[in-house]
Amino acid sequence: MKGIKTVAIVGGTHGNELTGVHLLDHWSSSQEEINRKGFETELCLANPKARQAMKRYIDQDLNRQFSFEDLGDDTLCGYEQYRAKELNKLLGPKENPRVDFILDLHTTTANMGLTLVFNTNNPFVVSMAFYIKQKMPDAVLFFHPSERLEDNFLTSVARLNGLLIEVGPIAQGLLNHEVYETTRLAVLHALDYLEFSNHGQVPNLPKTMQGFQFVKKVKLPENDRGEIVAMIHPERQDKDYQQINTGDPLFITFDGATIAYTDKESLYGAFINEAAYYDQHVGLSLMKKIIINRIE
Amino acid sequence: MKGIKTVAIVGGTHGNELTGVHLLDHWSSSQEEINRKGFETELCLANPKARQAMKRYIDQDLNRQFSFEDLGDDTLCGYEQYRAKELNKLLGPKENPRVDFILDLHTTTANMGLTLVFNTNNPFVVSMAFYIKQKMPDAVLFFHPSERLEDNFLTSVARLNGLLIEVGPIAQGLLNHEVYETTRLAVLHALDYLEFSNHGQVPNLPKTMQGFQFVKKVKLPENDRGEIVAMIHPERQDKDYQQINTGDPLFITFDGATIAYTDKESLYGAFINEAAYYDQHVGLSLMKKIIINRIE
Repeated sequence: MKGIKTVAIVGGTHGNELTGVHLLDHWSSSQEEINRKGFETELCLANPKARQAMKRYIDQDLNRQFSFEDLGDDTLCGYEQYRAKELNKLLGPKENPRVDFILDLHTTTANMGLTLVFNTNNPFVVSMAFYIKQKMPDAVLFFHPSERLEDNFLTSVARLNGLLIEVGPIAQGLLNHEVYETTRLAVLHALDYLEFSNHGQVPNLPKTMQGFQFVKKVKLPENDRGEIVAMIHPERQDKDYQQINTGDPLFITFDGATIAYTDKESLYGAFINEAAYYDQHVGLSLMKKIIINRIE
Repeated sequence: MKGIKTVAIVGGTHGNELTGVHLLDHWSSSQEEINRKGFETELCLANPKARQAMKRYIDQDLNRQFSFEDLGDDTLCGYEQYRAKELNKLLGPKENPRVDFILDLHTTTANMGLTLVFNTNNPFVVSMAFYIKQKMPDAVLFFHPSERLEDNFLTSVARLNGLLIEVGPIAQGLLNHEVYETTRLAVLHALDYLEFSNHGQVPNLPKTMQGFQFVKKVKLPENDRGEIVAMIHPERQDKDYQQINTGDPLFITFDGATIAYTDKESLYGAFINEAAYYDQHVGLSLMKKIIINRIE
């Protein structure tokens, strides 16, 4: 495999997720912390206009604008659709990327701890996730498979794809030392892995690890007028990555009535009560527990 | 004292504090829950434009626009300054208000539990706060004295002033059942108190209760360029209403250095790491512990 020459650490893809934004500031004046032998590490503030406005996005979610098809569609001219094309020039282009790997820093209002989101089963990326989880055992592996050219996440612009580092719970527009430190350490471990990998010195890693694979999103219950009529049930709140079985409480209406989970298949919650998904009336994601194989 | 004839429950004074907004919706279709004998209860969405934009405010904080002087100043023409004048017509006018009492519903990202904010030592208002705390003992009494005509809070528009019900922690743009229920119950107890008061049937209340009085705000540390360089220290995070003594950690810089509290007077924190105050780079409020007297 061609070695890693250029890595980009990206923050502020969502403008109100301040942890990544401030880590970029920190590293721009403490470059030695992210310097590793054998490759260059660039810092990139992905959505400066949304960061200025302290909003997730101006016109649309930037982290859904990077499919090869959309990047080539000049009729898509919202701010983030335009900004995605600019980032594609800066970091890509997707069909022949300049940047080898992207670390994209996110936060969530859900109680997801340190979650490592990767959209590929490329053994190089899976091994990085395994390496970080070995160093930070509470990390959760979140697999959301997608073909790189079709993938609409920002990370998919890089040659070997990337890793989305998602840490929570934290409110939007806020900093929290624990979330900041968790994110910082995960990035430093990722950079260590890239350095080790370049030099064929990656320590022994397990062949398999447990993780979760995205299945589907579940909408908050709505009335005939399309207004939400319920919240996440208190028994579900903050219970990310815990099992949900048929009959378990899922939502509670504004009048206090419980709405249960009715699917027959037991699944696991994630992004439970993520504020950013209220615009789509999404209450949580459902995941299946999987064994992730690291094929060398 | 002239009895209570008209009460307003106000929500969405800050457009991204969804609890109050959804409680208004709930009560508009469940009027029986808020009906009490002897007075009318109105529902008022204070900042519909900010609610639509899912922002705290469009141009400026609505809950700082209600001083008598500013309400009469036609040169103040930001959206919230305009909206304050409209609400003053609807609920006031401040110098001779139609509405007797306002319950204004807020949330905070700080770990402040149920906090009852009142800006007057009017025994009628103090007794309401005492009554609610008797029913909900975890409630914190937060006294922020101000002359009604000079007071810039929305509650000050009502004849007998009002009570600001602040519940946290919760992210902006989010609902949480516990926060929703706590807010709902506090409002119902407040309405009970108003009914009992009108009929001279207020149960026995203690003469004094412990509370906190606002002293000052403390800014997040900044560099020469006015950029923040530190976060709330992890030992302070979520420790609202706990004592802060000289030498206690207050902030931690992005480089990991602790900044201590240097005042000689021991005080107590509140609004610790409130996302809404980042626009002013405010990290927390300092409060003194007080004994509140209910003068009959």
